[in-house]
Amino acid sequence: MASPLRIGLAGLGTVGAGVLRLLDAHAALVEARAGRPIVVTAVSARDRGRERGLDLAGLAWEDDAAALARRPDVDVVVELVGGADGPALTLARAAIAAGKPLVTANKAMLAHHGAELAAAAEAAGTALRFEAAVAGGIPVIKGLAEGAVANRVVRVSGILNGTCNYILTAMEAEGRDFAEVLAEAQRLGLAEADPGFDIDGIDTAHKLVLLAALAFGTRPAFASVETAGIRAVCLADIEQARALGHRVRLIGLAERRGEALLQEVRPVLVPATHPLAAVEGPRNAVVVEGEPVGALVFEGAGAGAGPTASAVIADLVAIARGERLPAFGVPAAALAEAPAADPAARAGRHYLRLVVADRPGVLADVAARLRDAGVSIESLLQPAASEEQPALLVIVTHRGPEGAVRRALEAIAALPVVLEPPLLMPILEGGA
Amino acid sequence: MASPLRIGLAGLGTVGAGVLRLLDAHAALVEARAGRPIVVTAVSARDRGRERGLDLAGLAWEDDAAALARRPDVDVVVELVGGADGPALTLARAAIAAGKPLVTANKAMLAHHGAELAAAAEAAGTALRFEAAVAGGIPVIKGLAEGAVANRVVRVSGILNGTCNYILTAMEAEGRDFAEVLAEAQRLGLAEADPGFDIDGIDTAHKLVLLAALAFGTRPAFASVETAGIRAVCLADIEQARALGHRVRLIGLAERRGEALLQEVRPVLVPATHPLAAVEGPRNAVVVEGEPVGALVFEGAGAGAGPTASAVIADLVAIARGERLPAFGVPAAALAEAPAADPAARAGRHYLRLVVADRPGVLADVAARLRDAGVSIESLLQPAASEEQPALLVIVTHRGPEGAVRRALEAIAALPVVLEPPLLMPILEGGA
Repeated sequence: MASPLRIGLAGLGTVGAGVLRLLDAHAALVEARAGRPIVVTAVSARDRGRERGLDLAGLAWEDDAAALARRPDVDVVVELVGGADGPALTLARAAIAAGKPLVTANKAMLAHHGAELAAAAEAAGTALRFEAAVAGGIPVIKGLAEGAVANRVVRVSGILNGTCNYILTAMEAEGRDFAEVLAEAQRLGLAEADPGFDIDGIDTAHKLVLLAALAFGTRPAFASVETAGIRAVCLADIEQARALGHRVRLIGLAERRGEALLQEVRPVLVPATHPLAAVEGPRNAVVVEGEPVGALVFEGAGAGAGPTASAVIADLVAIARGERLPAFGVPAAALAEAPAADPAARAGRHYLRLVVADRPGVLADVAARLRDAGVSIESLLQPAASEEQPALLVIVTHRGPEGAVRRALEAIAALPVVLEPPLLMPILEGGA
Repeated sequence: MASPLRIGLAGLGTVGAGVLRLLDAHAALVEARAGRPIVVTAVSARDRGRERGLDLAGLAWEDDAAALARRPDVDVVVELVGGADGPALTLARAAIAAGKPLVTANKAMLAHHGAELAAAAEAAGTALRFEAAVAGGIPVIKGLAEGAVANRVVRVSGILNGTCNYILTAMEAEGRDFAEVLAEAQRLGLAEADPGFDIDGIDTAHKLVLLAALAFGTRPAFASVETAGIRAVCLADIEQARALGHRVRLIGLAERRGEALLQEVRPVLVPATHPLAAVEGPRNAVVVEGEPVGALVFEGAGAGAGPTASAVIADLVAIARGERLPAFGVPAAALAEAPAADPAARAGRHYLRLVVADRPGVLADVAARLRDAGVSIESLLQPAASEEQPALLVIVTHRGPEGAVRRALEAIAALPVVLEPPLLMPILEGGA
């Protein structure tokens, strides 16, 4: 019998509790597959007295998470505290400094400090793994860093935030507006009381930079992600998109543009036949486009105690098996500083939606601004206005550079008849 | 600079040539990710003189593939010869006996001899890897054995043969019948001159038993797969399925039934909203249903030089990185001998299609046999017969045991008015 791999677990929220329960419930299965038992020996959380429905008897307790890293009965540290800085970062640094492998689900921390932590882990000869940080239970870190390892990745894109996808698909399925569905998601525990992190695209951006670093061998560069969320998407947009044969999804996308790297998070019109259009509710999916493998699609549960614990334990098994792999696929010193590509250089069709005063001449004013910027109109729709709703104007452009569309929108936004900031969504082409 | 990993490559067909080309084209990328160069030093193929458009200068040649295993300048053997026995098996045994890791895309060999080879590799302290043997470029072996490692898998199913999926989706898209599309697929190189291996479901069955072994920790058991192919599926079936909101797909499915293991390959009616329904053309997809992760979907190119080479090289990189993992996820001695479950014990709705003489009383005869077997009819359709086509009768049953449906079909097949063997397809429920 090989000696057990002893885990120090920081954070006993939903995911931490899930990891404890799953290691217990599947102990024999995990031992058979890992080649040795994996056991939690010590835990840490903010409030020792809180009732969690967990049996913590037999586990050492540390009030200070970083103390886990120094315990002689801890071989591997699992960080499920959360937050880009603070106790999570202190613990991560302490674990690595002690030469102990670190497993984390903390995308915010890695998006901001991933390059530093990867370099430190490498210098210390230990592992940094984060399968649970992106797309919950979907083994996409492994798929990208190991499964697609022979490929030159050209693009990685996906639905990376279950809250946003739940809201968008519930709006479509139930014909309800954003605020109503958000409130319901909050009641159901699918959205936070302060939902900004999710619905403003920040959580998606955190995950995207980790995928991009793995895909392109670049340093995680959160500051260069152009990020927009879904607050501005209204039911009429979803209905119009549907009429055009598309679905609205919040997409994180990273792609090579010569030497530069484009990273953006924004709502996008996805063709109904595209694999990302079929992703419903809180599920996640990632499309990895590589040469020569073509498009690989990974789909599954993006969050939740069980799926996320599944990903954390996959990392623990890899460590138990002795796998050693640089955190971002290549040595930290080899990670390139890719300049940020200009999102406006993108060419394609675009969806524009304006909220306008219901008076004559609006169309002429808007059309003139588009013409002046060299944007050619494929179709123009004016959904019937109701008493409660202001008048909307929906424009689909022909294929052209996004820069021209943005210039036109600046001029359009300045028109007195335009009542709210215009919404711009790119229209994705083709299937996977 | 770490010393190169030296490869002996047997088989220079499409995939072998693809591996040579990709290792050359992506040499720097593979070296950065593998931590050392991966270079082919020696090759073997049937006919040395054949023009392959490959530059073999600088590579040693062996007429006898098994001699690759004995070469001191070969660290790892890649077997792309094919065939369940013969030279491929001789080479595999020789490589393992020499203590050299074996990478193979040979599902037929592993389906028949996988347990023996896994045990031999383990005894020799070397690796046996086969990412390319299932679903081409999709890293589903890794996804199952490593990504989903913490899960108790309850079912694994998928579209595992690109030829069949191409034929079924082309029939649907173009409204053409089986024989016509098969002939075209043969012209396009998407189907073999002797297509039986693919269209009779044997290739799918080979892949299925490898997925099942990994998913359930059982010995690969090809003999216990109940296998049916797509020869009997006609255009009318596909059109009727579509009218019922379904698509026809050739599905390999393995699932736990208590202590027993069900393994079957057959055409199935898949709901249009199911992820497998969206898989078009020669693409493959695998759904892994595990507890607690839920359904994970892996989709991508199931064949072709580039995608398959991508999978072969992923295995080589894992070996270069020093990863050691039992071939089927757990030690060979721990692989269980699961008894085969009775497919007829399955409960669900069923699609039956009969070719009948166009005369009065047929319906009454058929309905009586179904009633006698206790099968309850949900709907009965008689697509309009034409002069060229015989009369068809399509029946959808209510949910019930497949055993009863099979009994009814035996009696129905014996009716003089029934002109061909009836076609039975299960109707899959729900989404992923």
